[in-house]
Amino acid sequence: MSFVIVSQQRRFAPDKMQKVNLFASPQMFCDVYCLEPGQAQKPHEHANATKFYYVLEGTGEFQVGDRTQMLSAGQLAFALPGEIHGVSNASDGRLVLLVAMGPNPNVKG
Amino acid sequence: MSFVIVSQQRRFAPDKMQKVNLFASPQMFCDVYCLEPGQAQKPHEHANATKFYYVLEGTGEFQVGDRTQMLSAGQLAFALPGEIHGVSNASDGRLVLLVAMGPNPNVKG
Repeated sequence: MSFVIVSQQRRFAPDKMQKVNLFASPQMFCDVYCLEPGQAQKPHEHANATKFYYVLEGTGEFQVGDRTQMLSAGQLAFALPGEIHGVSNASDGRLVLLVAMGPNPNVKG
Repeated sequence: MSFVIVSQQRRFAPDKMQKVNLFASPQMFCDVYCLEPGQAQKPHEHANATKFYYVLEGTGEFQVGDRTQMLSAGQLAFALPGEIHGVSNASDGRLVLLVAMGPNPNVKG
């Protein structure tokens, strides 16, 4: 399972944003986030981890620290440890993100 | 510099594969790798890091451990610590990859 067809790893739900895990190790996890219109990942922070969102499809409003920017497919937002970050899909289309974070707080080394 | 237009971060050179850094922290780096036809990143391993290649454009031959697979845009290969990995562009078009690795051996925490 070293190879993944990312476009097949998508799952949407009407109640909330879906996270589809692609792989996980103690050093890093990689997910696909799938947001229907109106869904969001609320701003939050990780004290010790670096994370990025890469837009695969659609347009989202991304917050990192005190900055907010609209990003579309081919654009990326990253948050360093302690930087507040979040994303919301205020568009009328689906938003799909490739997301990686390291280290992985859910898997012990 | 929390936001990056990845499609603008490309640089090719005739002598070897180019790496364009998007961001780096002690926990993770993220690069764009740009391979002209015939260029490669030779198989190698990282004892303590997890890494992935996500294909943005083109087609490459990816090795992870003892497995080799052709991947095109929208597909991903990942290598856990100690897994040999590499990529070669045996196609007649350019190959562009989004690459992340954590932790980052080049930046101390």
